[in-house]
Amino acid sequence: MSSRYRARFINSLSGYKSVNLIGTQNLDGQSNLAIFSSVVHLGASPALIGFIMRPDNGSRHTLENITQSQHYTINQVCADFYQAAHQTSARYPEHESEFDTCNLSEHYIDGFNAPFVQESRLKYAVKLQEIMPIAINNTQLIIGEIVHVICQGSAIQADGYIDIESLDTVTASGLDSYHTSQRLARLAYAKPDVASTALKLDATAVKAEFSRGVNEA
Amino acid sequence: MSSRYRARFINSLSGYKSVNLIGTQNLDGQSNLAIFSSVVHLGASPALIGFIMRPDNGSRHTLENITQSQHYTINQVCADFYQAAHQTSARYPEHESEFDTCNLSEHYIDGFNAPFVQESRLKYAVKLQEIMPIAINNTQLIIGEIVHVICQGSAIQADGYIDIESLDTVTASGLDSYHTSQRLARLAYAKPDVASTALKLDATAVKAEFSRGVNEA
Repeated sequence: MSSRYRARFINSLSGYKSVNLIGTQNLDGQSNLAIFSSVVHLGASPALIGFIMRPDNGSRHTLENITQSQHYTINQVCADFYQAAHQTSARYPEHESEFDTCNLSEHYIDGFNAPFVQESRLKYAVKLQEIMPIAINNTQLIIGEIVHVICQGSAIQADGYIDIESLDTVTASGLDSYHTSQRLARLAYAKPDVASTALKLDATAVKAEFSRGVNEA
Repeated sequence: MSSRYRARFINSLSGYKSVNLIGTQNLDGQSNLAIFSSVVHLGASPALIGFIMRPDNGSRHTLENITQSQHYTINQVCADFYQAAHQTSARYPEHESEFDTCNLSEHYIDGFNAPFVQESRLKYAVKLQEIMPIAINNTQLIIGEIVHVICQGSAIQADGYIDIESLDTVTASGLDSYHTSQRLARLAYAKPDVASTALKLDATAVKAEFSRGVNEA
């Protein structure tokens, strides 16, 4: 098995991945933007988010900038700019900003030293908390706290769920495949001896006959 | 902000998540099955996969069993059994197997002490490598090595990419929303000064006019 084949195969096993652009800048104000498919929810209270930094990743500038500024932004990638987002993975020299080379727009908020992606419809500011080495394969888990969220208001449901499908957020599989989504349903909190119950987008119940398959034997 | 609202909101920020069932058994052969949305690719060589274990998760049996047997299976959730998969998150007592209560079928291979989900069309055997405590919020990163893969052959492309969309693998957003996917494109490995290039599913190039948006300024 060639190493390229192996990389594509193993990368497909985890299932669908989040697709996010991480925005940073160094102490001279030089901005950087890099695509990551390993952003993972760590906890809601405190609001913690993680991502995996690989030693062979072209985006070491991202980690250098985070270490310098302690700040970064995470920006969901939407269908109308996924090709530009993918292009940020090319190995540009440090003095070139991927915002410029990939035609994406920088957006800043007061008091936060990292650029947002203007085109993203759900993005947030993150303060570095910890860099955890994963010794077994020389990667790192970068842990940060979410301190400010910018989101198109129409997507936020009354119960707090954000309808990222309405934002055209994309998902990825393997190393290079991008996908939009189609909702099957929201499902109610599962309880023993109660059949699976579908909810409408706003979290109200839909008709009972939707439920099937569980505890029906 | 209520804690439920906050949990739904913060859980929506990371983007689309993988949806996997983790199968385990204890030393008495009692099986357990639990749904996780935090499975993340860590590396291809060695083939390492991680997932986050929360302290308040109903699935502590999963970790107890992994600690005992050192073995577990990860099974991609497909659209035809996503409701049964969600139902495994109900807090069943330890002596009840979620395979039984949720109408999913156990499948075993020789020499591996954990059950696969028969209904899953992409699944793999994992040997525990490390349990890394994440002190900041009392969670754990469980790291394992992929030792055996079971996949419907038709989904595996010549270059190693697995077409998980053809397997009806689902993705999740927030705490409770499930989605199928629709491919936008595979994109060629990005290089500086070369516009983003779409590939067909089998990784051959499609017509050049598909490319747009990058480096066109």
